[in-house]
Amino acid sequence: MFFASDNWAGVHPAVASALSDAAAGFDPAYGSGAWDKRVAEQFNTIFEREVAVFFVATGTAANSLALASVARPGGVVFASAEAHIYTDEAGGPEYLTGGSRVRAVPGSGGKIDPQGLAQALRSFEGASVHAGQPGSVSITQSTEIGTVYSLSEIAALADIAKARGLPMHMDGARFANGLVALGCTPAEMSWKCGVDMLSFGGTKNGCWCAEAVIIFDAERARELPFYRMRAGHLHSKSRFIAAQFEAYLAGGLWLDSARHANAMARDLAALFEQGGAARLAWRPDANEVFAIIGEDVAARLQAAGAKFYDWRPPHWLHDAVGPDEKLYRFVTSFATTPADVSALGALLNA
Amino acid sequence: MFFASDNWAGVHPAVASALSDAAAGFDPAYGSGAWDKRVAEQFNTIFEREVAVFFVATGTAANSLALASVARPGGVVFASAEAHIYTDEAGGPEYLTGGSRVRAVPGSGGKIDPQGLAQALRSFEGASVHAGQPGSVSITQSTEIGTVYSLSEIAALADIAKARGLPMHMDGARFANGLVALGCTPAEMSWKCGVDMLSFGGTKNGCWCAEAVIIFDAERARELPFYRMRAGHLHSKSRFIAAQFEAYLAGGLWLDSARHANAMARDLAALFEQGGAARLAWRPDANEVFAIIGEDVAARLQAAGAKFYDWRPPHWLHDAVGPDEKLYRFVTSFATTPADVSALGALLNA
Amino acid sequence: MFFASDNWAGVHPAVASALSDAAAGFDPAYGSGAWDKRVAEQFNTIFEREVAVFFVATGTAANSLALASVARPGGVVFASAEAHIYTDEAGGPEYLTGGSRVRAVPGSGGKIDPQGLAQALRSFEGASVHAGQPGSVSITQSTEIGTVYSLSEIAALADIAKARGLPMHMDGARFANGLVALGCTPAEMSWKCGVDMLSFGGTKNGCWCAEAVIIFDAERARELPFYRMRAGHLHSKSRFIAAQFEAYLAGGLWLDSARHANAMARDLAALFEQGGAARLAWRPDANEVFAIIGEDVAARLQAAGAKFYDWRPPHWLHDAVGPDEKLYRFVTSFATTPADVSALGALLNA
Amino acid sequence: MFFASDNWAGVHPAVASALSDAAAGFDPAYGSGAWDKRVAEQFNTIFEREVAVFFVATGTAANSLALASVARPGGVVFASAEAHIYTDEAGGPEYLTGGSRVRAVPGSGGKIDPQGLAQALRSFEGASVHAGQPGSVSITQSTEIGTVYSLSEIAALADIAKARGLPMHMDGARFANGLVALGCTPAEMSWKCGVDMLSFGGTKNGCWCAEAVIIFDAERARELPFYRMRAGHLHSKSRFIAAQFEAYLAGGLWLDSARHANAMARDLAALFEQGGAARLAWRPDANEVFAIIGEDVAARLQAAGAKFYDWRPPHWLHDAVGPDEKLYRFVTSFATTPADVSALGALLNA
Repeated sequence: MFFASDNWAGVHPAVASALSDAAAGFDPAYGSGAWDKRVAEQFNTIFEREVAVFFVATGTAANSLALASVARPGGVVFASAEAHIYTDEAGGPEYLTGGSRVRAVPGSGGKIDPQGLAQALRSFEGASVHAGQPGSVSITQSTEIGTVYSLSEIAALADIAKARGLPMHMDGARFANGLVALGCTPAEMSWKCGVDMLSFGGTKNGCWCAEAVIIFDAERARELPFYRMRAGHLHSKSRFIAAQFEAYLAGGLWLDSARHANAMARDLAALFEQGGAARLAWRPDANEVFAIIGEDVAARLQAAGAKFYDWRPPHWLHDAVGPDEKLYRFVTSFATTPADVSALGALLNA
Repeated sequence: MFFASDNWAGVHPAVASALSDAAAGFDPAYGSGAWDKRVAEQFNTIFEREVAVFFVATGTAANSLALASVARPGGVVFASAEAHIYTDEAGGPEYLTGGSRVRAVPGSGGKIDPQGLAQALRSFEGASVHAGQPGSVSITQSTEIGTVYSLSEIAALADIAKARGLPMHMDGARFANGLVALGCTPAEMSWKCGVDMLSFGGTKNGCWCAEAVIIFDAERARELPFYRMRAGHLHSKSRFIAAQFEAYLAGGLWLDSARHANAMARDLAALFEQGGAARLAWRPDANEVFAIIGEDVAARLQAAGAKFYDWRPPHWLHDAVGPDEKLYRFVTSFATTPADVSALGALLNA
Repeated sequence: MFFASDNWAGVHPAVASALSDAAAGFDPAYGSGAWDKRVAEQFNTIFEREVAVFFVATGTAANSLALASVARPGGVVFASAEAHIYTDEAGGPEYLTGGSRVRAVPGSGGKIDPQGLAQALRSFEGASVHAGQPGSVSITQSTEIGTVYSLSEIAALADIAKARGLPMHMDGARFANGLVALGCTPAEMSWKCGVDMLSFGGTKNGCWCAEAVIIFDAERARELPFYRMRAGHLHSKSRFIAAQFEAYLAGGLWLDSARHANAMARDLAALFEQGGAARLAWRPDANEVFAIIGEDVAARLQAAGAKFYDWRPPHWLHDAVGPDEKLYRFVTSFATTPADVSALGALLNA
Repeated sequence: MFFASDNWAGVHPAVASALSDAAAGFDPAYGSGAWDKRVAEQFNTIFEREVAVFFVATGTAANSLALASVARPGGVVFASAEAHIYTDEAGGPEYLTGGSRVRAVPGSGGKIDPQGLAQALRSFEGASVHAGQPGSVSITQSTEIGTVYSLSEIAALADIAKARGLPMHMDGARFANGLVALGCTPAEMSWKCGVDMLSFGGTKNGCWCAEAVIIFDAERARELPFYRMRAGHLHSKSRFIAAQFEAYLAGGLWLDSARHANAMARDLAALFEQGGAARLAWRPDANEVFAIIGEDVAARLQAAGAKFYDWRPPHWLHDAVGPDEKLYRFVTSFATTPADVSALGALLNA
């Protein structure tokens, strides 16, 4: 019953096997080898265009390097108050961009909303130098609280960003989970609706450390190799990230894994919707389920071996959480089994 | 005949196997799991004391984070003109330390010498604020040009550093190669001769991405978790770095691999010492061999499939390289075979 | 009728005269001359202890360097949502601290309140590395909205900061205005109630560019010379900042000027309290007066030559500002005359 | 006999008087007032084109902000080993550019030479990401050792920079001294021979803190306001820098002052050329004179009240300085009198 995070899971067998297969032999280092080139081609295919792909090993690196590459002096990154870059990267985006600020934009359901973004940007219109200047807009898909932006929601935000000349970044640590939730193509969920830079995550969905910064406009990618190198994020034996991605993308493994994780999340949500000892905080679109549970019940579940964390309630949920209750997060992954879910259900109803 | 770099090699079978074994199951993320704790114990054992260990995935990360953790405003890092941090990290140390300068200190054989260091430091004695201030001293063991500091050479430099209150950093990307060359213990080659911070490398010696910042004084390690996190260098599935190190350190695999690589280097050096089409630039102590070769001969070797790079000659070698010659570097690793060396020898004498 | 800002004013005649007197002759550069030493003594006297004084030319420099000198990796600076460092320094504190975040702490009246601070800090208790770590607490005295912390309010915040080991910074761009409002001593309003670092401002109160970072604990000041130098904030002809401070502090000129400005503000407030075309937003403690005025009336005043700016309403005032109204700020200074105030009054009642 | 530095001098009476005249009255802050606009026009006239002018208070600020505005990740600034940015700014350029390295380029007489620059750049041709990338070229006019680049020397360097797409920066802390030495126009000594960015200094030539970053291509200046603001270098009462420049530039005061300083330097040099107790190290082109003097003689001069510093000998002069001798620097300024020079001469010959 491991629902603590999708990064508590190990590696999908197919990815593990690909790593083993890549173990022997020599290959040019630092991304210039055969594996890297093959995988770059895979990304071109998946995104239906030439893209610039930069492998890194962590999501914080992917996000920070993407944002650094478009940072402006006195720049502000607009993101949700739930955004990983705002709450969980220990100031990495500020540090690696040379001091950009990340500013929370109003919205609900873990998303920025267009009115909120437009209003935040208006406060910089004709503004003096003192306030700084807008730098970029960053959204997370699927979001940190398990919801998913629709294509039109993304496009609406991208339109506002573009009208101000701002690049649009997507934190896709759980890109696959969002993608299968929408049932659209990777191109549709990224550059076709206005995304300029994508942190494409594999780690939470069955790889062990495979993330990529994907830049859709080659011109914007020109300096990325130096941003990555000077931050210590260029791997010498880069083929091992490539090998992970090769297996991950081959035959739709990434999509199947995400579909499985999302299905497990739906099953979990159904448990909480039955009421009783817990109630669903909101309906999940992807692989994260949030429930409001009495602290005594949660303690009982944890004592029985269920792993999950409590979560800071979004501001719009504060009133819904009772005095002896907390909000808890349950994350599913490729490795979650129906048996895990059933076992949790049995405990809940015990 | 792959002599381009030890990072063109793949992964040692034992490390690959350990990675496979770690693939299944759940484990707490971000270094708090069982693997990480076991490996931290291994490091304590190896270094004969409690040490603070921080896994990262690249040598540039290890070096830069170690140096960042002791950086001072206007600070200067003293290192060899051949140092990786000076020539090959695209300004990573400058960037991640918030603007420290890396200053080349005179020496020969790829090493700083004590007189050179003392003199460089004297120019900061009683100095005004304009010159900045000494920040740390960094040496590389084995060095970037395949030589190895003796223990007394390290201690002499450390004494000078300590007399000025400066922390001593060792870039140990090839720590194992230096260690087996000296035949001493890890403790003797690090904290016992005055090293405060060590970049401990596994990648070049059979891992695929396993580096660690090792801090010998716990107090100095207090902020390291934040330095690592904000630079995007904390791995969520940290157990996979741990698993590599576990296999790497178990049963002396790391030492055996380094001994093998060094032996292959000695055999290569013997080839070049025979004279003829090439001559040895200097005698190797570890796993890098440098030879002066006519460009036509080098081209012939490369056309026959030998992989190796030319190298900027150190200043003290300039006169030894003829007009149609270049200095070339040949690197051996755990994966180099006697057959590779023989094949190169045959080509040389062809 | 210049109420736009206290930095629209020129220089107090006594300060101007001191600058003229300092024009001729030679003096050692970079702060080592006679003037600088004399003024350092004045600061010791004023603060009733040895203090470390670092002259700079702007308030943003003073704030950023003070905060930089205590910055920690992944660090968070806690400040009011109205704080100059949060809203008006174009990310200077983030940039010059190497990526610290400034986080708004709840409160009212332009101040942080102890409950708000305690709660903000609690969210970092036992927190994982992902959230970053508390770095410092910064308050502004007098505040950006013309209110003044009482000594016990400052002490209460400092106690909370100290309990977490955090240094306490005071942005004293308008230190003098706060001081005369409280009628206490500089020592009482700073280190005696727990302030560790002070940005001491002279510019807004009659100097033309005289600010100082004051550090009360000498040990903490050790690296400041380098922080200042590497940011380009060490003046070669430092004596001219010294000369300003010398005149500013001599004979209580700074206190008299602040008293005058505060008195002018009270007179302005009295105008707005009479009701009619404008109403006082809140009672001023220092030299900034805020009024809610119909936009048509404001336009009429401005057309008649009155200079003042509209101001973003604090969140707790949103409901008080009608649809055709705005919040406006009126700032007084040593140079504001009773005639200016009367003239505005006459216009208001016209 | 104050020859320690041109920044030991005070303020030219005309500049002091202008500061006094600017003391009274109100003016919009942060550079938007009348003075700033008038002075911007003066700069347009002087440079015979529209230029973007950004006032700052120190030369380190001017240099660092100019270089920051064109910094690239992993970037390298090429400059002379005598350059102020290389030796005397405590890492300010590294810090404020976010980690660019300053690399010394060979040359002599305090200048970069074209062969040295071309060779330094060649080492980055086709280079891997590890070495970083060229970022900009910076020269100093007049140089730190009192020599002056000819227009064709500047143009030759600029051509090489341009061929690599690199912006050309001139540290003009002593721009005026170089200008009158060459007898050309400001336009000729800057953009007409390929300079893109100029640190224009007034402080060493009779102002008390008046420096400007001048950008010749408006497009390149677009972000400068934010670079300046976030580093704390925007002055609120900017009119006082403007007032200094207004007087400095009016009626050719700046040129007259520089001519005087250079003439005094020539007279000093003549003293040293007479031989005897001292000898001229090289012929000065501007206002800095370097002499090799026995330490006992120097001590005697200093005991008699002469102020001057010893100086690190450039590498090409090492052999010329005897065991009991040192290289000493004598700087003249607008405030140096013939009597000062005569007095030194009398001492020398005593």
